[in-house]
Amino acid sequence: MQILDLLVGKPLATTDERAERIGPAQGIPIFGLDALSSAAYGPEAGLSVFIPLGLLALQYIVPITAAIILLLVIVYFSYRQTIAAYPSGGGSYTVARSNLGAFPGLLAGAALLTDYILTAAVGISAGVGALISAVPALQPHTLGLCLAVLVLVTVINLRGAREAGIAFLLPTCLFLGTLFVTIGGGLIRTAQSAGHPLPVTPLPPALPVMQAVTSWLLLRAFASGCTALTGVEAVSNGVKAFREPTVKNAQRTLTVIIALLALLLAGIAYLVRVYGITATPAGQPGYQSLLSMLTAAVFGKNLFYYVTMASILFVLSFSANTAFADFPRLCRAISQDNYLPHAFGFRGRRLVYSYGIVILAILTSVLLVLFDGVTDRLIPLYAVGAFLAFTLSQAAMVAHWIKNRGAHWRRSILVNGLGATVTGITVCVVLVAKFAEGAWITLLFIPLLILFFMRVRRHYRIVSKRTTCPNPVVPAAEGPPPIAVVALSRWNCVSKQAVEFASRLTTEIIVVHVKPGSTPELRKADWQRYIEAPFREKGLPPPTLEVLPSPYRFVVLPIVQFVLELSRKYPDRPIVVVIPELVEDHWYEYFLHKQRGRLLEWLLVAHGNERIFAVTAPYYLGATK
Amino acid sequence: MQILDLLVGKPLATTDERAERIGPAQGIPIFGLDALSSAAYGPEAGLSVFIPLGLLALQYIVPITAAIILLLVIVYFSYRQTIAAYPSGGGSYTVARSNLGAFPGLLAGAALLTDYILTAAVGISAGVGALISAVPALQPHTLGLCLAVLVLVTVINLRGAREAGIAFLLPTCLFLGTLFVTIGGGLIRTAQSAGHPLPVTPLPPALPVMQAVTSWLLLRAFASGCTALTGVEAVSNGVKAFREPTVKNAQRTLTVIIALLALLLAGIAYLVRVYGITATPAGQPGYQSLLSMLTAAVFGKNLFYYVTMASILFVLSFSANTAFADFPRLCRAISQDNYLPHAFGFRGRRLVYSYGIVILAILTSVLLVLFDGVTDRLIPLYAVGAFLAFTLSQAAMVAHWIKNRGAHWRRSILVNGLGATVTGITVCVVLVAKFAEGAWITLLFIPLLILFFMRVRRHYRIVSKRTTCPNPVVPAAEGPPPIAVVALSRWNCVSKQAVEFASRLTTEIIVVHVKPGSTPELRKADWQRYIEAPFREKGLPPPTLEVLPSPYRFVVLPIVQFVLELSRKYPDRPIVVVIPELVEDHWYEYFLHKQRGRLLEWLLVAHGNERIFAVTAPYYLGATK
Repeated sequence: MQILDLLVGKPLATTDERAERIGPAQGIPIFGLDALSSAAYGPEAGLSVFIPLGLLALQYIVPITAAIILLLVIVYFSYRQTIAAYPSGGGSYTVARSNLGAFPGLLAGAALLTDYILTAAVGISAGVGALISAVPALQPHTLGLCLAVLVLVTVINLRGAREAGIAFLLPTCLFLGTLFVTIGGGLIRTAQSAGHPLPVTPLPPALPVMQAVTSWLLLRAFASGCTALTGVEAVSNGVKAFREPTVKNAQRTLTVIIALLALLLAGIAYLVRVYGITATPAGQPGYQSLLSMLTAAVFGKNLFYYVTMASILFVLSFSANTAFADFPRLCRAISQDNYLPHAFGFRGRRLVYSYGIVILAILTSVLLVLFDGVTDRLIPLYAVGAFLAFTLSQAAMVAHWIKNRGAHWRRSILVNGLGATVTGITVCVVLVAKFAEGAWITLLFIPLLILFFMRVRRHYRIVSKRTTCPNPVVPAAEGPPPIAVVALSRWNCVSKQAVEFASRLTTEIIVVHVKPGSTPELRKADWQRYIEAPFREKGLPPPTLEVLPSPYRFVVLPIVQFVLELSRKYPDRPIVVVIPELVEDHWYEYFLHKQRGRLLEWLLVAHGNERIFAVTAPYYLGATK
Repeated sequence: MQILDLLVGKPLATTDERAERIGPAQGIPIFGLDALSSAAYGPEAGLSVFIPLGLLALQYIVPITAAIILLLVIVYFSYRQTIAAYPSGGGSYTVARSNLGAFPGLLAGAALLTDYILTAAVGISAGVGALISAVPALQPHTLGLCLAVLVLVTVINLRGAREAGIAFLLPTCLFLGTLFVTIGGGLIRTAQSAGHPLPVTPLPPALPVMQAVTSWLLLRAFASGCTALTGVEAVSNGVKAFREPTVKNAQRTLTVIIALLALLLAGIAYLVRVYGITATPAGQPGYQSLLSMLTAAVFGKNLFYYVTMASILFVLSFSANTAFADFPRLCRAISQDNYLPHAFGFRGRRLVYSYGIVILAILTSVLLVLFDGVTDRLIPLYAVGAFLAFTLSQAAMVAHWIKNRGAHWRRSILVNGLGATVTGITVCVVLVAKFAEGAWITLLFIPLLILFFMRVRRHYRIVSKRTTCPNPVVPAAEGPPPIAVVALSRWNCVSKQAVEFASRLTTEIIVVHVKPGSTPELRKADWQRYIEAPFREKGLPPPTLEVLPSPYRFVVLPIVQFVLELSRKYPDRPIVVVIPELVEDHWYEYFLHKQRGRLLEWLLVAHGNERIFAVTAPYYLGATK
């Protein structure tokens, strides 16, 4: 327990909940890291599609970024309304389920869960990837570094929401600060040079024009750039984490996140245009990230450049944190409807949904290990889930407004309807543009997850049906007394304790002794003197001794078989199997004894029936307590 | 169970033991692989010391090999006598313990156990190393290959002694066959060329003479060459594995192994001399193993060369098998004297000591993982253990003959005394010559192992003392009836079953219900209607309901605390805690329910006392059986 205290902190009482709630200052790093960090890869993803256009690309950057920012603003107003309508947490799952029905809800839930797992894996590996391109000597340790970051994020999240917010506040500020300084500096230089600033550090030359502009290319650039929007739904999912006034705080947080993201996207796009920066092909010699080129062009490669790069690297690695904040909340919402194991609803020591955090950590580590920490190829996959959830949640909001016609319901329908239409089109674009690159994996995984939800729900329904009990207890039912079966290996204090307990339960005791070798370990003299004689002296029927042969040297199986046969022979009598247990002082001493008692109990429960009861009769080696 | 059947075979009855015993044909691959495979590295280890001597080395090869063969013959006669004197298995441990006392026995046991772990790790990594020098593309998979070989050897050994013998017979024959053909061919060429054969494939040039011959160099070469003797004690340890006549079969096996080894060593040394082969520095470009150079010199690099190399590679990898045959037997012998957990004495499904095999596999895999599959540096360590055990076992035999003066006892003392003296000197030589190279690790590990033996023995003695019971059972002791505590979460069939069982045990029932949230899950109406009312109707005292608050949302801990307090309050009454258990149809369904019952039982046993009994009341979800 003390190790746990140190690692994840002392338990918090349920009544401490209010103190664990957060305001916008912690809300931005917790729910915004994913969205904000996408400024570091979204524009680059879009520009990379334009590489074959060479310098021709420059004229398309601003219009495409404008389209993405417009989409962002539509999605923002749409989610603002959702937060107000669902103050107890209006994730896409909840909203879609309560307005469109169970299946659309599960579809949104599965899409989001998939997306969060991918976000966590891609975020961590992107951050570590950035670190490695700065310090190539670390390359052989890629996977180890990824897993170390994963463990760190997991532990911070297990410690509770407030601590996670505090831990990530400073790096988020640094990231935003350096980027805005860069953008501001770039704008000043542009103004000073009448719109044609010269880069401080020379830029890599643009590649020659190899292709004409097609609308297909523009569409693909738009679809790739849309990855900048992932993570926007996070706040609406976690409204309950905010302190009073909950809705206002959540909306404020969302507003700040979206405004910052839009400014970043616009600033980056404008400077890329005026400095004439083109993307370099990733994974090839001479590759440099877009933000690296931009910062170097504005200020040169000085200390500020390295601080900026470090903060980008940090924010990318910890963008996984948003997934850790939302995945457990979503799992809990789904488990409350019996579609996921109920354990997801259990709040751990620090009032967070520990199971969800641990499961996400396990799934992420599986992805990281499978891809050796290089999850680049997963990036195209993860916009699909996010946009599918966006579309469903906004379509659901339209249905919501039609049912609940409050003030301005027409305007609300318009906002959410526009959002649903635009994001719906984006899903199709992303799917078509990236199907071959791996989006099909998402399309395969989501139905499997939905199938799993259905199976879990079905299981809980069956359990509930079969255990529902319309009949009251029948106390002290008449009938023959139980038979006690005591499993003994030899005569000692442990055996004495077990036989005495059995003798209090019933007058019919069977002592079973397994004889794997040729001579039984329970000596005849001991049996007569210590067990049989005292019963006779008291005028009680003595226990029967059953020596079971064991040609295959198994000790536990013969006892289980004997008990099952006994139960078939006396179908009306309960059988109480008494298992003597030597309790050691130290846990490691258990390795010195064969743990047959545990195995016997487990097999009896697994193969037994409702008239077979297993009792542990403990004997304590240490001082009697 | 079916997977186990397929993997390690169907269980064998104890009465099948005779059929599982082996003759010399299986004995050679099982107990001889280690010794015979050392022909592949022993001579090379000796020659490597001579590298600085250049061609000067050639004149010292034959005398040093002669000394090693002489030592081998002395050890052979010595072990022959040991086998006859200890027909039930006369490993160094048994012999030293029964003649010299407990401590020398433990020293020999610890030395041998250490040696076997090293043998297994070094054998496997040497084999995989040979494979990799043949196919360098496999280099990144070194550790994976090592672990695969380890798993294979483990499974083959778990399948039983006979199958292991059969599996390794063919490769052993191939290894011996190709080596003897090479030696024979070499001798014929030598005769044809009047003692000066020309190599078919030119040899790498000898390095220039860089050092004068010193006696220290000769000693070091002898100590290194002595690794060829490791594994010789294996047969004496496993006498019981042989079929009748046990002693004769074991002695025959030992004779064949030693004769083959001596011939190999002599043949290799002679040919090295006449062909003028010098060792090449290991781990440097141009390295070639001694046997590779020899085979290529005699027959050239044709198909036969590659078959020979393949068989050497195979035999090296599977020389680990000898460790797997002996380590479990030795552990069992030590555990019979209470110095190791008794589980080592348990014979598994296939009549082998499964625990020993599994523990050896685990320890070996730890070594392989720690050293990334490159255990070259461990080679110097593992002659120390073997020779220490040789010395102790033979000194013990001298003591044995003094006590039991049979026929020829003087001659026997002479043989064993000579053996003890010579191997004793060898231990000192090896220790001094290799102390800095790593032999000190062995010197550190052996005492730790002995300390562990002592602690285990002490624990068993305490347990035996504290559980020895001079008093007979007190049947159906008078006194107040037990209190039954039933832990319920809500009303259902599982709860009904548990309460009914409790009502058969006693009239005083306490139902505990933990309320982690604000509303209890056990509804008041259910409690009154289904549990309280039927007791009242029958005129019985109804159970008491205890609702336990849980500010930290723990469910199991409050129940444990309640039971412990109850037990303090009523120090004279037994408490039976009834744990309702829903038994699922399929094991994987357990993940869908919180396993609180198991945790409750475990905590009750760990923190409870001898008056607290935990009963599992199972309710079966499937068809009633």
